[in-house]
Amino acid sequence: MENANDTTHVYATRRDRLRASLAAAGHEALLVSHAANRYYLSGFELHDAQCNESSGMLLVTASGRDQLLTDPRFLDAARRLWPKDDIFIYSSNRYQAMGDLFKSLGLEKILFEAKSLSYDTHALLSEYMDMIPCTGFVENLRLHKEPGEIELLRRSCAVNHAVMARLPDVLVPGITEAEAAWEIEKLFREFGASELSFPSIVAVNENAAMPHAVPGPKAATDGSLVLVDVGGRLDGYCSDQTRTFWVGDTPSDRFRRTLDMVQEAQNAALAAIRPGLSYRDAYMLAKNAFAAHGVDAAFTHSLGHGIGLETHEAPSLSPYAEGRLSPGMVITVEPGLYDADWGGVRWEYMVLVTDDGCEIL
Amino acid sequence: MENANDTTHVYATRRDRLRASLAAAGHEALLVSHAANRYYLSGFELHDAQCNESSGMLLVTASGRDQLLTDPRFLDAARRLWPKDDIFIYSSNRYQAMGDLFKSLGLEKILFEAKSLSYDTHALLSEYMDMIPCTGFVENLRLHKEPGEIELLRRSCAVNHAVMARLPDVLVPGITEAEAAWEIEKLFREFGASELSFPSIVAVNENAAMPHAVPGPKAATDGSLVLVDVGGRLDGYCSDQTRTFWVGDTPSDRFRRTLDMVQEAQNAALAAIRPGLSYRDAYMLAKNAFAAHGVDAAFTHSLGHGIGLETHEAPSLSPYAEGRLSPGMVITVEPGLYDADWGGVRWEYMVLVTDDGCEIL
Repeated sequence: MENANDTTHVYATRRDRLRASLAAAGHEALLVSHAANRYYLSGFELHDAQCNESSGMLLVTASGRDQLLTDPRFLDAARRLWPKDDIFIYSSNRYQAMGDLFKSLGLEKILFEAKSLSYDTHALLSEYMDMIPCTGFVENLRLHKEPGEIELLRRSCAVNHAVMARLPDVLVPGITEAEAAWEIEKLFREFGASELSFPSIVAVNENAAMPHAVPGPKAATDGSLVLVDVGGRLDGYCSDQTRTFWVGDTPSDRFRRTLDMVQEAQNAALAAIRPGLSYRDAYMLAKNAFAAHGVDAAFTHSLGHGIGLETHEAPSLSPYAEGRLSPGMVITVEPGLYDADWGGVRWEYMVLVTDDGCEIL
Repeated sequence: MENANDTTHVYATRRDRLRASLAAAGHEALLVSHAANRYYLSGFELHDAQCNESSGMLLVTASGRDQLLTDPRFLDAARRLWPKDDIFIYSSNRYQAMGDLFKSLGLEKILFEAKSLSYDTHALLSEYMDMIPCTGFVENLRLHKEPGEIELLRRSCAVNHAVMARLPDVLVPGITEAEAAWEIEKLFREFGASELSFPSIVAVNENAAMPHAVPGPKAATDGSLVLVDVGGRLDGYCSDQTRTFWVGDTPSDRFRRTLDMVQEAQNAALAAIRPGLSYRDAYMLAKNAFAAHGVDAAFTHSLGHGIGLETHEAPSLSPYAEGRLSPGMVITVEPGLYDADWGGVRWEYMVLVTDDGCEIL
């Protein structure tokens, strides 16, 4: 019970911080519909039933009497973590019923999350309430991880390390990408992950040049490279790491040379990552390290991304991003070099931005 | 290669049918953003990268020169199934670039899927193009399964049957819900499924009364019931079946009585399901069968739902739904009875509506 109370307190504290930021911007209520944001603020359902089927919404109000809105399937789950009188169950006439609820709470306008509410749901709700689009209120809180979240990310990443440590025994000549992907998934689950955090990439030789390779029937051979980009979810928090393995005794010269350049670019970024560094400059450190070898055109994606309750969350370490690193951010650092006729090498760590630098998780 | 050509032809035929229905309604183009709709019409990416991260969109136009829009990560996947000149890769300035593309194709207005496009994406695109909301154009095609789809659903459901057949050996006294769920997931994968089609429900005794039970540490004992509602995805197509097992030699009287009533309600529905029956009347057949025993208040959900590329798709066999069954629909039929203090029994089949009745898959 002590644990449950602690957890309840965590969510209440986050809602209070959100409430303060809403009040500072002159708003009285936010309807939270994005699944990870809903979970972050309440502990209720990290996933939607399907991408087009909401498991519920959270109404965070200036008054502090926050409401959990869901359908009858989730009543029991809601009751385990929310005051009974503040659970609102909708079934038919959902939008009119929500409008009536908002009015009964004295609300005249409600902010909604413009990136997650569908055009259709917005149009239906607008018939009953003045709806104001907004972006980023909850994401801005999630950008900086709390000590408890950092501990969970550390544990989740430890499972990823344990999986990677087993892969030299898994990636033997003859195993296909698809077979290896399933072995990796089983390892994640046996080590405690509740699910994969994204579909595994296991790519042999030329397939490793595709940033979105789907594991297929191609087999590793003695003398091939295998790029493995995988993650699991532990207690809600995602991991995401990439290693590129050599199958066989003696890596080819090209593989060793490419891996050296990738690790050099990664080290250049890691040495500079600290509070105040802009997202764009973090990217440029890797890009410039590659440029010094004349291979920067083969680095075709951003340097990394935030990670937490979602595999991909803010910030993005891309040349187009605006903003600067600050303590408590957890990001991936994942430079890579690709050649469609040969393959690719990528190496990825999860990194915590500390007060004066960074720490690899 | 023959296979690939066949598949290409399937998608092209579907787009032609969509084109005809758009033309009949006086429209010149539809921007398809819902992932399962996109896949149904092109074979491109059944899943989005995350629920809030599109893997691409499809523009189906009256002219027949359909465009596949995606980001650089998916270029290779796109090239495998789409004419090179009709692949549009966006990166920065995505919405302006899309608007320019639409104009270059001579389009003045574009329909979009109101249930899947976010408010934000719609607002950004509206700056560059006249966007018209619509619903159901692709879903109406997907409602009736083609012979090839029926064969895939049959095979997918066969895997589900094979898993269920193994469960009496899995569900032994002492196994927890979470352990059983993992054994079931491994069976699906070993039998060929690419993934689960939804998170498994494995619920012991009282937990079986929750329609959305999450498998946890509760263990089956000698003399307990276990409700198992599970599905896998095979070649893109979902399965979804429920059985309720008794662990131990002699089912309790209450379990047998409840199971008898559930199967009686299911048989009442199955005997009547044929083209022309309204969705609501299908539901009422089960409801009335329960009412004859005075237990209809314990049947707390709809009778079933369409299934195909998504676990939950049209139609819904609910008391609020409008429409009638017709040949080629594949639906679940899943009556259940629940008591929070005791447990629940649900039994679910996947059923094909035929010309003169129905067939259990």
